[in-house]
Order: sequence, then C-alpha cells, then structure tokens
Amino acid sequence: MDASLIDVPDGTITTPRGFLAGATAAGIRDDSAPGHLDLALLFAERRCPAAAVYTTNRFQAPPLRLTQRHLADGFAQGVIVNSGCANSLTGEQGERDAQEMAELAAGKLGVAVGDVVVASTGVTGWLLPMARIRAGVAHILPTEDGGDAFAHAIMTTDTVAKQTAARFEWEGVTYAVGGAAKGAGMIHVDMATMLAFLTTDAPVDPAVLSSLLRETADASFNMLTVDGATSTNDMAMLLASPSLGRTVGGELIGAGHPALPLLRAALLRVATTLTRKLARDGEGATKLLEVRVDGAASVADARRAAKTVAGSMLMKAAVFGNDPNWGRALDAVGYSGANASEERLSLWMQDVEVFGAGAPVPFDAAALSRALAHSEVRLRIDLGLGEGSATAWGCDLTPEYVRINAEYTT
Amino acid sequence: MDASLIDVPDGTITTPRGFLAGATAAGIRDDSAPGHLDLALLFAERRCPAAAVYTTNRFQAPPLRLTQRHLADGFAQGVIVNSGCANSLTGEQGERDAQEMAELAAGKLGVAVGDVVVASTGVTGWLLPMARIRAGVAHILPTEDGGDAFAHAIMTTDTVAKQTAARFEWEGVTYAVGGAAKGAGMIHVDMATMLAFLTTDAPVDPAVLSSLLRETADASFNMLTVDGATSTNDMAMLLASPSLGRTVGGELIGAGHPALPLLRAALLRVATTLTRKLARDGEGATKLLEVRVDGAASVADARRAAKTVAGSMLMKAAVFGNDPNWGRALDAVGYSGANASEERLSLWMQDVEVFGAGAPVPFDAAALSRALAHSEVRLRIDLGLGEGSATAWGCDLTPEYVRINAEYTT
Repeated sequence: MDASLIDVPDGTITTPRGFLAGATAAGIRDDSAPGHLDLALLFAERRCPAAAVYTTNRFQAPPLRLTQRHLADGFAQGVIVNSGCANSLTGEQGERDAQEMAELAAGKLGVAVGDVVVASTGVTGWLLPMARIRAGVAHILPTEDGGDAFAHAIMTTDTVAKQTAARFEWEGVTYAVGGAAKGAGMIHVDMATMLAFLTTDAPVDPAVLSSLLRETADASFNMLTVDGATSTNDMAMLLASPSLGRTVGGELIGAGHPALPLLRAALLRVATTLTRKLARDGEGATKLLEVRVDGAASVADARRAAKTVAGSMLMKAAVFGNDPNWGRALDAVGYSGANASEERLSLWMQDVEVFGAGAPVPFDAAALSRALAHSEVRLRIDLGLGEGSATAWGCDLTPEYVRINAEYTT
Repeated sequence: MDASLIDVPDGTITTPRGFLAGATAAGIRDDSAPGHLDLALLFAERRCPAAAVYTTNRFQAPPLRLTQRHLADGFAQGVIVNSGCANSLTGEQGERDAQEMAELAAGKLGVAVGDVVVASTGVTGWLLPMARIRAGVAHILPTEDGGDAFAHAIMTTDTVAKQTAARFEWEGVTYAVGGAAKGAGMIHVDMATMLAFLTTDAPVDPAVLSSLLRETADASFNMLTVDGATSTNDMAMLLASPSLGRTVGGELIGAGHPALPLLRAALLRVATTLTRKLARDGEGATKLLEVRVDGAASVADARRAAKTVAGSMLMKAAVFGNDPNWGRALDAVGYSGANASEERLSLWMQDVEVFGAGAPVPFDAAALSRALAHSEVRLRIDLGLGEGSATAWGCDLTPEYVRINAEYTT
C-alpha cells in the first residue's frame, strides 16, 4: 500500500487525538462472566463531523433508526454501544430503550442528546435490561487509553478484539485514523452483527465525510462475506474530530485538497485491516479467503464476482478441505451477475494458474492441495474484459461453524 | 391438492404412454462401481412438442447450448443424458462432444439429430470419455419399463432416485404426467447439477408448452435451494407426446381449454413431489425445510422471501439443531428484497406462533425445540401486506455437508 502511511498495529480508536473511550461490565446477559465488558462509550472532545453507513436489511433495529436521526445534521460527539442484546425486532419498547441509552450517554458526557449515536449487538428479539445499562453508564470513565476496552466491550462471538490505526504526515503534522470493529460479518444474526467505528483527528471537511466513509466501506466492510446474511444492526461510522486547535482558522481536507488521497488511503488501510481481522475470525473459520478479481467490465462487476466467489458455500468448503476445486470458483463467477465470457477467463489459486483463456490448465493437484493448506488462501480471477478490480474477503466453511450455529439456543 | 388428481408414487417418466427409456453402465468415471448406470436414453414414439428451462448461470455448458438450438423449433424426439462428467468449462472439444452425443442418440433411435437433446451432469472441467459413450449407446435398449433405469442413470451424489407420476381423467380418458430428477439443488457443482425430465401423454397444444413448463418450474424446481449455487448444467424439460392416436383429429389442450387447469395441476404435483425429494436428499441433509410465505405484496415478493429464508445458512443450521431461533427467519426476510413491514409480520414454526403483529410472542422454547426434532420442518410467514403466496423448499445444514464438500478432491 501507500509508502507514506505508517501502520500502528496496536493502535485503537483513541489513537487519534481528541477521543476518549471507556467500558464497563454491565451484566447485560444473565450468563455473562464476571468482568465481561459489554457497555462502552466513545467521546469526542469537540462536537465533530460524523457519518455512518447502515445495514440494507429492511428491518433496521431501533438504535440504527435513532442514529440515522441524530446524524442527519452531520455531527456527533458521543457514542454508546452495548453487546449481548441487539435491541432488534423489539417494537415500541425497543425505540424507547434506544432513546434512553442516548439520554444516559448525553447526561454522562455532558453533550446534547441529539449528538449521541447508539449501537447494539447481540440476541434478537430481547428487550434491553435498562436498569443494568443505567447503572453501567454511571460506572464508565472515558480516558485517552480507553480504546482497547471499547474494542473488547463490543465483542460478541468474536474470539479476538479487532482494532488498528494508521498514521500519515502532511506538512509536518502527523494525523491518525483509528478503528475498532466486531462481528464476523453477518455470520450469526443473534450475536455477530458487524459494527465498525472509525475515528480521525484529521481536519476533514464535513462535505466529504459521508462519501469518504461510503467509498471506504464499499471497498472493505462491504466486501466481507461470511454467510451471506445481513443483520438488522450492521453499521459503520466515522467521527472526524480535529483536535489541538490545528483547524482553528486552518484549512480543511476537502474535495481537491492535496492531502485527501493520503487521508483516503489511511481510512482504507484501517478499514481493510479490520475487515481481514473480521474474516479471519469468522465463526469456526480456520482460514482467511481472499478473492481478487481483475479485468472486469466495471468495478461493480468485479465486486459482484469477487464477493460471490468468496461467499460460495462450495468454495468455502473446498478451502477448508485444501481442495483445488477450481470449477466451484468459476461456477460462482457465472451466477454472480457479473459480465463474463468463458473464453476470456483465467484463474489462479495460490498463484498457480488452473484455468486460462477458456480452457483448463493442467496442474499438479497434490502440490496445489499442499499450498492450500495455509491459513490464508488467495484466488485471483481475470475476466479479461476491462479495467475493473476488486477484492473480497471471507473464510472457510467448517463443521465447527455448523456446530456453533446449531447448538446455540434461544 | 386437486382431488381429481391421482398420485402414482411408483410412476416414472415412462408411465405416460408413448415413451420408452433405457440406460447402461458406460463406465464414464474410472472409479464407477461395476454396473453403475450412467448413460440413458429417452425416446418418444412420435416427434413431439418439447420445451426446456435452463440455468441462469452465465457459463452454460455445451450440452445446454446444443439443447437450446435443437429445441428452437419446439420439437424433440430423443433425449440422451450422462452422469459422471458435466462436460462444462471444456471449450471447443466440449461442443464437439455434445454434438457427437446427439448424433449417437439419433443414429440409435432412428430420429433426426436436430430432434435430440443432450444433458450432462458430473465433474466440471473434464472431457467426456467419448469411446465409452459410443460403446454405451450401442448397449441401451429403450423399453416401456425403462423409466426407473433412466432415473437411476442420472444420479450423481443423490442417495435415492427421484421419480413420480400423476394421472388425471378428462372425458373418460386418463392422461399421465411422469417425472424424473436428480441433484440436490445445486448443492455440489461438480456432482449435483439439477436435472428434471417431465413427460406427458396429454395432447398439449405446442403453443402453451413453454409457458406451462416455465410456470411449473417457477413454483417447484426454482423454489428449491440447497446452497445458493447455480450450476452451469441445470435444466428442466417437458416432452408432450400424445400417443395412441387420440389426438389424430382430436382437440389439443391449449389456452382456454377446460382441461388445462387439470394438466397444470398434474404437472405441478409431479414437479413439487420431485422438488421435495430433491430437498430431502440434499447433501448431508437430515430434514426437509418448507417455508411458506403468505400475505406478500406480490407472488414475486413471496418467492423472494420464502427462498431467502429457506437458503439462510443460519436458519438451516438452526433447523439442524432443533433451535427455535425465529430471529434468523425474520432477518432473512429483511434482506430478501421483498417488501415487508415489521409491524405487520407474523411467524409460525411448526404451527407455533412466535412473532405476531410486530412483536415477539412468548412460547415454550423446550416444547418447540422438541417439535422441531422432526424430519420435516415447516415455517410460515405472513407479511400482512397483500395476496402473494409462495412455498420454498430446502434442507438443514449439517456437519456432514461440510465433510462431503471438503473431502471431495479433483
């Protein structure tokens, strides 16, 4: 990626200046282990430009509906998130509970209720235990080191916390983008909504914030597929809080600004790193699957083809079994809806060409099977039609996935 | 269903008069067991109206392309099918081999090459062993009792042959519709393409044959989902061979004919029975999943919602685990693209209402879990918006599915 970016692998959402975060163990689920963090706050020292992208599921959960209303003016200052209960398909009481969560956070942080956004993840169809949330909010102490606690508090079936940051320099000043995410895609509607929170201390022009987030999400979170399901609670948001007075009278990074490509690259780096972490931690997953499509007639076609291959149950099972079963990848390209022509297709698995220019290419199946026995499997497909490229991420399909999802009971 | 229909559970594609079928063990796969039937012929005593519907996969296999050309005139007299090799993604040699299969069948049956259609199912990317097919065709002896052999010869990963027939009477004459199918949906692109063959001796007006098949397939085979994959070789066809001279000078069943509803019902009955057999025999499946959607704004919406729920990996895993996890069904409705409103939704699992008019309905989870421990699981969803209804069929997702699809190697 871009050489002027500096990865901060142990970075968090409080790596950018001007953000504080904290979390507590509110005991949202009766079966929570003692000390299990499940309620978190994020606080921007100043009211700042903010944008979010939301699930395409028709049944948006109450916290998403509230967040959309509160972000209509393009600004926010506080975020409250809980895990353990999605507050989804909960009717009017769910609406009231989301509203009260915003009010609790506003009171705690001393900001306007309309500047608080709310996210929830966990079991569907259950009401939030509001008494525990009231008590929990009172206990949270947001600090500059609180990003790590925040990333842990939003976990559900995740086995590891997902967070990272990147830095870039512009005219002698270093800026940061931080991110935290949870949920292995939409792998588990009850437990693993995808939530992502991005922060930056770069002075972003509010006019470009939404489109920056949208293009970042389209190339990262939206290219993640674990089981094809789309939760009622999925959401990714970006808060841009220019700190330290550097923008008082200074210029903003907006359309045409020479620093915009750097900022865009930093956002994409953080979001892509989080996406790969999410894919690798898919329920039951033993491998990360990366599918790159080149030569598509359009970027939209490349995305369709890449995501369909990465989401094919047959391909995912083959990846688990180290099976160089290339027909499954091409079959998925064929039903992806992307423009494609058999005669122009080529396919590589772990850099071994197995199909070229419309015909199978002989290969050493045993050697390729050994190459597939790796924690990261890469497919590359060239459609031979145009300039469109895209990468999608997923994971293998394992018996453990079925076990986890069959044995969970309401 | 319609009381004037008579099921013929042990019926075959040769139950309708005027059809002969036969099969042989050609040894198409090197690892075929001795006597394993893998090459079949179907013969109509007269050149007859015929129609087919084809996979939506962009990479249609050579036999499909040939069949489309040969059915362009709406007539056929012979069908040749092989299992063990899909002749898909095989380039120009594949086209030549499909053509030779048609020629072999034409020579054997004494019909025009243009009246022969070809279907293949099996491994992708391999060339057909044409010497074995040449020898095999010579050995097949089509007879009036050959329907059962035909149904066995088209099997790949199927554990049972799928065939059935139905009869109806019109003005003192009994007509039959017969059917054979293979492949648990598109569960296994290498091995389990969905093929269906329907025959009837009813004197169908060629003008309505295509639309009859299309509407039958849309309500049956096209509502089957096993793993969301669409093979390059899927095809369903209908041959209508009025036999016994009953139509010489007689009337044809066409648009507006009073017997058309009966014929339509018989076709739907046979196709639905085959579809349920296909779903129940999905790879690794232990249960049939039937999802009925009522109250949709349109039939198209009902089909979208029903098929999305039946295809949800999370729902399928829950069915395997006897988990009354209703949120997964509603989540899938929400991302199906069907028009839906949370406030109007109701959901029943095994006839127990779990969600009604926009809110969870308390239920006995242990009792419902016991009710789900049955070989047939029924979900019913009422969208409360209109008159559209549809039913989709699928199966549970089991660790065995993953094992089968991971352990197969090219």
